Amino acid sequence: MSKFKLDHTHEAARLSWVESANVSDCQFPIQNLPFCRFVRTGQVCVGVGIGDFVFDLTGAAQRKLVDVPGLSVGQLTQIGAGSTELRHVIFAGLEDGGGWASHSDLLYPQDSVEFLLPFEVGDYTDFYASIHHATRVGSMFRPDNPLLPNYKHIPIAYHGRSSTVVVSGSDVHRPSGQLKGDQDALPAFGPCKLLDYELELGLWVGQSTQSGQSLSVAESAQAYLGVGLLNDWSARDIQKWEYQPLGPFLAKNFATSVSPWVITLEALAPFRLPANLRGTQDPPVLDYLLDAVDQSNGLWDIQLEVLLSSAAMRAAGTEPYQVSTSNAKELYWTPAQMLAHHSSNGCRMRAGDLLASGTISGPAIESAGCLLERTWVGPEQPRRPVQISNQETRIFLQDGDCVCIKGRCQRDGFRSLGFGQCQGTIFAGKVRH
Amino acid sequence: MSKFKLDHTHEAARLSWVESANVSDCQFPIQNLPFCRFVRTGQVCVGVGIGDFVFDLTGAAQRKLVDVPGLSVGQLTQIGAGSTELRHVIFAGLEDGGGWASHSDLLYPQDSVEFLLPFEVGDYTDFYASIHHATRVGSMFRPDNPLLPNYKHIPIAYHGRSSTVVVSGSDVHRPSGQLKGDQDALPAFGPCKLLDYELELGLWVGQSTQSGQSLSVAESAQAYLGVGLLNDWSARDIQKWEYQPLGPFLAKNFATSVSPWVITLEALAPFRLPANLRGTQDPPVLDYLLDAVDQSNGLWDIQLEVLLSSAAMRAAGTEPYQVSTSNAKELYWTPAQMLAHHSSNGCRMRAGDLLASGTISGPAIESAGCLLERTWVGPEQPRRPVQISNQETRIFLQDGDCVCIKGRCQRDGFRSLGFGQCQGTIFAGKVRH
Repeated sequence: MSKFKLDHTHEAARLSWVESANVSDCQFPIQNLPFCRFVRTGQVCVGVGIGDFVFDLTGAAQRKLVDVPGLSVGQLTQIGAGSTELRHVIFAGLEDGGGWASHSDLLYPQDSVEFLLPFEVGDYTDFYASIHHATRVGSMFRPDNPLLPNYKHIPIAYHGRSSTVVVSGSDVHRPSGQLKGDQDALPAFGPCKLLDYELELGLWVGQSTQSGQSLSVAESAQAYLGVGLLNDWSARDIQKWEYQPLGPFLAKNFATSVSPWVITLEALAPFRLPANLRGTQDPPVLDYLLDAVDQSNGLWDIQLEVLLSSAAMRAAGTEPYQVSTSNAKELYWTPAQMLAHHSSNGCRMRAGDLLASGTISGPAIESAGCLLERTWVGPEQPRRPVQISNQETRIFLQDGDCVCIKGRCQRDGFRSLGFGQCQGTIFAGKVRH
Repeated sequence: MSKFKLDHTHEAARLSWVESANVSDCQFPIQNLPFCRFVRTGQVCVGVGIGDFVFDLTGAAQRKLVDVPGLSVGQLTQIGAGSTELRHVIFAGLEDGGGWASHSDLLYPQDSVEFLLPFEVGDYTDFYASIHHATRVGSMFRPDNPLLPNYKHIPIAYHGRSSTVVVSGSDVHRPSGQLKGDQDALPAFGPCKLLDYELELGLWVGQSTQSGQSLSVAESAQAYLGVGLLNDWSARDIQKWEYQPLGPFLAKNFATSVSPWVITLEALAPFRLPANLRGTQDPPVLDYLLDAVDQSNGLWDIQLEVLLSSAAMRAAGTEPYQVSTSNAKELYWTPAQMLAHHSSNGCRMRAGDLLASGTISGPAIESAGCLLERTWVGPEQPRRPVQISNQETRIFLQDGDCVCIKGRCQRDGFRSLGFGQCQGTIFAGKVRH
């Protein structure tokens, strides 16, 4: 069953018996129904977001309201290809007049539960799929030739670290590492001075493959369970000194934050970027990355923003500063192309694997998805600080800074969906030496 | 308790009631006692190698012969810091006259069991710790300046893929991918033509850390459970086109083979390279990588060899060709330095994480740990094929080729130890497109 097809679950007029889901600017109307995992009295549960609540799907499975493998033991890994049917069951249960109204004891206020990662991450892979990001970062090192020759042929990626993927709300320590300025004769060890965020989408693989098996673009488009927000925290000074010749390592692997919600492919179906708004991939991509449907609607229109607040701002009750706005439609490579490429050599995928888009930057400086870009003016010029409050500016992140990523889908004739948030606060590292 | 200390378990005169362990060239005398995991009647078990047998430690735990967390459920992740005490218990049980002689029904011939990975790998990290490898590969791209400026300061590494780490004996498919020769205007997709092995050590982390916690070199030296053999299969043509700017990805992540045996730090204690045979690290390393004990004995003297046989050679009964010999003492960075560096930014480690040394090459061409080096003569010169039999030569691997890595420790006055083998055979990829 296609996860892209519009059906009754996308109709804007449908309401839920959970009243808060029907409020106009609610992030989680019944048309959304994102998955999450949380802890209830010591037990790991799967939940679904509805209004201001989490509905406990593990409890529902234990009551035989839903019969999908894994839910009763708090796992999303066994849904496999059954996500569309599961959405229909949940929708029917939570819809106004639906049969689960008599199970309202399975509703928990979202602000009362401890969220977990949606999956125990098997492998985490970070792509580099925004051409605006790649071009702007490339121009810092190669002004005359910013984009490498392989960029428009290969969805470039590297492996990240799964042990340090953490759920939104987890504090993030400032890493220490080897630092060496251009003028320094030798490196020194100390706390990172150029700490940055990266605005990304997290793509959750929902189906497993065998070693040696590859997925076509069309298969890949269906193989995700859904999408969340992701912050690929980055230590730019560590990165600069360590990354040759094998790529980023300690500069990235101290923490990666993800939002707790998996916004399903089904919920995102109305928000695929229309073909007439999509640029073409030129030069044409190789056949294994080429799919007519994917070329026409392989990206989503997801509005993204990064909010930054200092400890002083929070103490003073000052609103967070919107440091960047961007959109998932800015990606050069589609999520389906990323997964097709990843599996093209027969690399085994496991349900719960996490792919990230790479920093999602647009062409304008205000849409730059990281401070490395956001405060860069040009070669040989000093960085331009961002004014985050009347009192404070930032070039890179300070201890106490809180970075919060939000996402939203909007389209005339459809209910708007929210992604929740991906948030983390920096504290001084407590690394022993 | 130090894992480096010599005690009665290292005395050469000690024998086992398992007769085959007492044969002079046996790989698994009672002084070795490597861990493994295997399947017995559908159950995952921890075992220990002794002579030609695996002794079933999970069965022993179920009979209360040994009381260490995790063994009874077939896991090595919970031994933690208790490995030395466990070794003493096993040694006493398996020694000539030891109490486990009446449990000989727990012995299984090694050739009768199905081996598993020693751990379910959490994260896999591949280092680049042989300076001979880094120099020789670097000289292919930068003849005048082969070693990058960071090499002698940072133990360079990148993240690998944990889903495709497989145990010795697993066949390995030839990956497909984007290939682009220097003369080609555009890349094409097809089977890798330059398939290679890489001779490495696999280092198994035995203890977990918290996020934000770092390990000193001295702590790192004790934090491994032990060591195995590892083949980091590599597609050189895929690697060349994809690796800029974020490092190797599909060129490496289709398969990584490891031997089933974890040779413990305790067993390796007599085989630490004497200080007088160890080169100094010059320039001196930063304090967080510097430890006097590690500088004097942080490497092991492990003899390594790579055997190559074609399908035709095996059909004809021809012995495998010894294509490389090397030694773990050729590493520039010690295993303790690798782990100290890895955790220096607070990156969380989990028991069962796998670190690999990187290709272990010596200075001589016969000690080159991969074909990329082994068949390279110099810049602008055609590669020199290796004659693997009277009929066949190799520049890179062909379908049907079997690569087998072996390891051996020897020292006067001590029993010699073997590492078993890490073996894999290439078959034509069955990647669909």
